[in-house]
Amino acid sequence: MSNAWKAYQEQHQDRFLNEMMDLLRIPSISAKSEHQSDMIRCADAVKQSLLAAGCTRAEVLPTAGYPVVYGERIIDASKPTVLVYGHYDVQPADPLELWHSGPFEPVIKDGKVFARGSADDKGQFYMHVKALEVMDKTNTLCTNIKFLIEGEEEVGSPNLGAFVAANKELLKADVILISDSAMLSMENPSLDTGVRGLSYIEVEVTGANRDLHSGTYGGAVANPITILTRMIASCHDENNHITIPGFYDDVVIATDAERALINRAPYNEQAYKDELGLNEVWGEKGYSTYERTGLRPTLEVNGIWGGYTGEGAKTVLPSKAYAKISARLVPNQSSEKITEKLLNYFQSIAPKSVTVKASLHHGGEPYMTPIDSKGYQAASKAIETTFGKTPIPVRGGGSIPICSILERELGIKIVFMGFGLDSDNLHSPNEKYNLENYYKGIETIPYFHKYFAEA
Amino acid sequence: MSNAWKAYQEQHQDRFLNEMMDLLRIPSISAKSEHQSDMIRCADAVKQSLLAAGCTRAEVLPTAGYPVVYGERIIDASKPTVLVYGHYDVQPADPLELWHSGPFEPVIKDGKVFARGSADDKGQFYMHVKALEVMDKTNTLCTNIKFLIEGEEEVGSPNLGAFVAANKELLKADVILISDSAMLSMENPSLDTGVRGLSYIEVEVTGANRDLHSGTYGGAVANPITILTRMIASCHDENNHITIPGFYDDVVIATDAERALINRAPYNEQAYKDELGLNEVWGEKGYSTYERTGLRPTLEVNGIWGGYTGEGAKTVLPSKAYAKISARLVPNQSSEKITEKLLNYFQSIAPKSVTVKASLHHGGEPYMTPIDSKGYQAASKAIETTFGKTPIPVRGGGSIPICSILERELGIKIVFMGFGLDSDNLHSPNEKYNLENYYKGIETIPYFHKYFAEA
Repeated sequence: MSNAWKAYQEQHQDRFLNEMMDLLRIPSISAKSEHQSDMIRCADAVKQSLLAAGCTRAEVLPTAGYPVVYGERIIDASKPTVLVYGHYDVQPADPLELWHSGPFEPVIKDGKVFARGSADDKGQFYMHVKALEVMDKTNTLCTNIKFLIEGEEEVGSPNLGAFVAANKELLKADVILISDSAMLSMENPSLDTGVRGLSYIEVEVTGANRDLHSGTYGGAVANPITILTRMIASCHDENNHITIPGFYDDVVIATDAERALINRAPYNEQAYKDELGLNEVWGEKGYSTYERTGLRPTLEVNGIWGGYTGEGAKTVLPSKAYAKISARLVPNQSSEKITEKLLNYFQSIAPKSVTVKASLHHGGEPYMTPIDSKGYQAASKAIETTFGKTPIPVRGGGSIPICSILERELGIKIVFMGFGLDSDNLHSPNEKYNLENYYKGIETIPYFHKYFAEA
Repeated sequence: MSNAWKAYQEQHQDRFLNEMMDLLRIPSISAKSEHQSDMIRCADAVKQSLLAAGCTRAEVLPTAGYPVVYGERIIDASKPTVLVYGHYDVQPADPLELWHSGPFEPVIKDGKVFARGSADDKGQFYMHVKALEVMDKTNTLCTNIKFLIEGEEEVGSPNLGAFVAANKELLKADVILISDSAMLSMENPSLDTGVRGLSYIEVEVTGANRDLHSGTYGGAVANPITILTRMIASCHDENNHITIPGFYDDVVIATDAERALINRAPYNEQAYKDELGLNEVWGEKGYSTYERTGLRPTLEVNGIWGGYTGEGAKTVLPSKAYAKISARLVPNQSSEKITEKLLNYFQSIAPKSVTVKASLHHGGEPYMTPIDSKGYQAASKAIETTFGKTPIPVRGGGSIPICSILERELGIKIVFMGFGLDSDNLHSPNEKYNLENYYKGIETIPYFHKYFAEA
């Protein structure tokens, strides 16, 4: 059966690539309202691709925000059902000037396809669409398959929880399979055992009621930029430990065994620094790089702006300054609680000479999957089959806010079988996805279904 | 003679206003290269207006940057010569969305003309053009008049020094008269006795060689925004005293008498706060508001940016963050020395995990004018004549970088006779100039020439 899969894939691999690239051409940026019609167009394209790949039912279903695309291929009610989750929305493409080619004009260079969404997540969920086609056309389907492809992952899935709660029967399955993460490398395949939670807030600091001349008023009226920089600077201590009261209260301290496991993953600090152009790594004292991105919660400023940011100089004392700030959370931290602490913190430390408005963008809970679960084991075996190596279990640094809600509502476990790489420039200019990884994913996924059905 | 001036002005006051508004319609933003042709157009319009007002010679003279407009009316080589300095360039108009009407579409509302450049400085230098017309048409010219109207004041006059040095004979005069500042109020007229110096720098902080996913790399790679906020926050201590090593070294400590003088100016803190929408004033501990803006040097962030600043949320760990930062300097501080200290400071405190590029935008020296000088006394008497009150001598908070160079090259003193108000929104949206101030300026200037000629 594996020979049939490989033969079919090889015969159709150019088309598999072209179809995926067609999807990348749609600028489905959920954060920007100007892309509303692109979002709808993208959802429809996903639906059509599901029908073409072998789904017997596919629909664009409304939510209070952007619609969800649902598809299914039921072969036998007594067989296990795999629910594939993915998202058709992408991150904004700014800063545009740093892209070497248009973010929505995919080009292939050095065996990689460059485009926003290529790895996150269009290129990855589309592997599952094509894997369905491979299994269908070779008459080797051994599980039922459902697809839940949403359009609001990059803005925190604000409406998916309600959709899932209202459609539990429709989405009933035995395992959730997600390809929206990375592996260490093709030589060192890995499987994420969890994702971090997220609390994403925005802070607005206002000084005077209008922009002022910095000569006339500077030194006598609070500068909201200066105040904001002090507030942000106060969020970490000299060891880069987060100082927000209670931030670490609920963190489950990693055991020595867990720390040993995470540090078993191959790591070459010089190569890491070289690849990122760094003189030195940075982070919380007492932890390794993988511990910092996997085991520990973090607080990052994702954006800051205020005053004059154009060419040349302007001697202005601005009225307002802003920052977008997000925390990544680890097991047992609650996004709601941390968000409250963050909002309170920025409100409480503001001097009287300014006013502060702090508000939530979105959040999501951390999620862990047990490595002895049937789903994890099937994924591990599938990768071992096609890569020739048992994948290393690692903690993912990113967040998929909906995970904890999916488990709670559907009562099943999630398996993270990502085929991306950390170097894919997710959320950055020149996002790319290696064709090798794309094809390897399509090759590996049918084995997951096989091993899951057999288990 | 004063009756003839008043009669002529009243007869022509609508035209005086319309002509000034025509000048405001030209978007002569020196900081933005896209306005190059507007700058040239504006210089030419200024030249034409000088000829129309009674100059017997007016020329647009080249510099290494934007040209200077020179004009003169020589009545008698034995009479004293007044050199009027002004600038035809304006600050950028951003943020555009906060303007109630187009920055270059002047409108009159409640007795004020709203437009970029209305007070700074087109509306103010144009008073001198019209005052020349008034004196010329009433045959009452009693001094020679020269005009030096430059096009790079808002970017620090980088080329004017060389121009002045090369044209000492052309610019030879007995006093320099500048209307590019404000008075306390029409009820409390004042004369600036000096301007502060300026050191304006830009700081660029670079972390990784590209934008990264904040989940994958956050916590393990330095965030240039976080580092920049720490660096800026470290520039002041808890008393808002500037901490940059050596910053205050050369400051001439104000005497008790000087402090008493500056605090004699009417100041109502509640009214000050109400007008600016503030709960509290802010500044260096131990100093009053006027001391903070007049006697003391300051350090302000004029702009900051980095990461994602658009709508919604993006979980990016940016590669770069930037700030525009400027210090206002007081007598005996050297702009060059302070600039060096600022640049060194930002370089020296940068952790190894980032690289910092700090560079100068422009600078200028502080300048003080003695109140017992002939020029100051003529201005004081002129204002007393038309306002009915002796003007209060105050220290101006702003900067006119060229002042110290003008004095050095031409060997004469500068008089600051500004008719603006602090509430004119200089460098801010909705810049305005009160028509009353405009007309009062045109009325007052001929008296300056009269008293200066008589002294």
